[in-house]
Amino acid sequence: MSNFGFMTLRVVNPYEVAFREARSAVRARGILENAQEFSNVADAISDCALIVGTTSIGHRQLKHPLHRLETAGRLLRKRLATGPVALLFGSEKFGLSNEEMSYCHWLLRIPTREEHGSMNLGQAVAVCLYELIRSSARVTPEKKRLASAADLTRFDCLLTEVLEKSGYLHAPSTDEKIRRLIRRLQLPAHDAEVWLGMLRQVLWKMGNGQG
Amino acid sequence: MSNFGFMTLRVVNPYEVAFREARSAVRARGILENAQEFSNVADAISDCALIVGTTSIGHRQLKHPLHRLETAGRLLRKRLATGPVALLFGSEKFGLSNEEMSYCHWLLRIPTREEHGSMNLGQAVAVCLYELIRSSARVTPEKKRLASAADLTRFDCLLTEVLEKSGYLHAPSTDEKIRRLIRRLQLPAHDAEVWLGMLRQVLWKMGNGQG
Repeated sequence: MSNFGFMTLRVVNPYEVAFREARSAVRARGILENAQEFSNVADAISDCALIVGTTSIGHRQLKHPLHRLETAGRLLRKRLATGPVALLFGSEKFGLSNEEMSYCHWLLRIPTREEHGSMNLGQAVAVCLYELIRSSARVTPEKKRLASAADLTRFDCLLTEVLEKSGYLHAPSTDEKIRRLIRRLQLPAHDAEVWLGMLRQVLWKMGNGQG
Repeated sequence: MSNFGFMTLRVVNPYEVAFREARSAVRARGILENAQEFSNVADAISDCALIVGTTSIGHRQLKHPLHRLETAGRLLRKRLATGPVALLFGSEKFGLSNEEMSYCHWLLRIPTREEHGSMNLGQAVAVCLYELIRSSARVTPEKKRLASAADLTRFDCLLTEVLEKSGYLHAPSTDEKIRRLIRRLQLPAHDAEVWLGMLRQVLWKMGNGQG
């Protein structure tokens, strides 16, 4: 991270012993000292407008758009020009869970060979960050600012409530589905309030209507 | 190395204990088992037609042409197509000595930031090899198919009806606003049915609730 100038590290539920005792290169010390700890992914990414997960695919059936790192880098650079972006890495052993992935707008994969897809975590991070600063030539920033993760979480909650009240939703197991559905929308930041206001009004009306 | 399909490892004067006890990922075992040991750089590279050294520059006065990794990658790929090429990495602690560099045709550097140039060896290798295989395969970009205009019109109508019923909408002059709002969502085609289904259910429920 320090080599490539990415200075904000957030960790979710780190293994405490390992995290406390982690040592970094002298010139990267600030990153580790200032790392913020969170108990869940939602809190860790709440101020980010784009959340991208990393995967080696493997056997799991992916329910997200997937880009190779080369393409992903281009998309990420555009967004980095306009606001905070989160690049989400799973644990060394298991990668990202489906629940963790459900917070992502899309996923990227490093083009490793099929026979040996899964990478060492530190190396995977280095390769991704290199791609982000690679030929840091001119990039035209994308104009549309997207809704923050916090806004999307509000959207998740309100929509779920509306759908439950309407009888559309039965199983609570659909939380992840709803999250993915909403993130695929690419909701612009300045529209988020409008949609949230609509949902609140509908919810209020349904409450009223049902007495 | 294994992740990116580079299977030939040659080591020069390794620290014997570390080298004997080195463990690799299961699927990379062959690389380590078949690694060849040499007592000097000259022997290690004798069959290669191009020798490229890696450096973080630092204070040393370089006596070689130096390319950024992006450019180096292009040059290396061309040569790899015609014969064996050696990519030379120095020790974790000291990098390449001037003597070792003297065997190189030219040098490359990974574009790390000035304040923290020197990289972890494993990460530096991963980044260099990634650059070598980068965009090798033609990738058909995943094109997200967006919802058809007809689907969006259905969305417009249903949402308008829901909003009218809920009391959110008063003026009919907001039609255009609603249309623009919906089109800014970039609704994926395969999600359109889901959203339309939700709206229908909400509408049905509101009708029922109101009696």
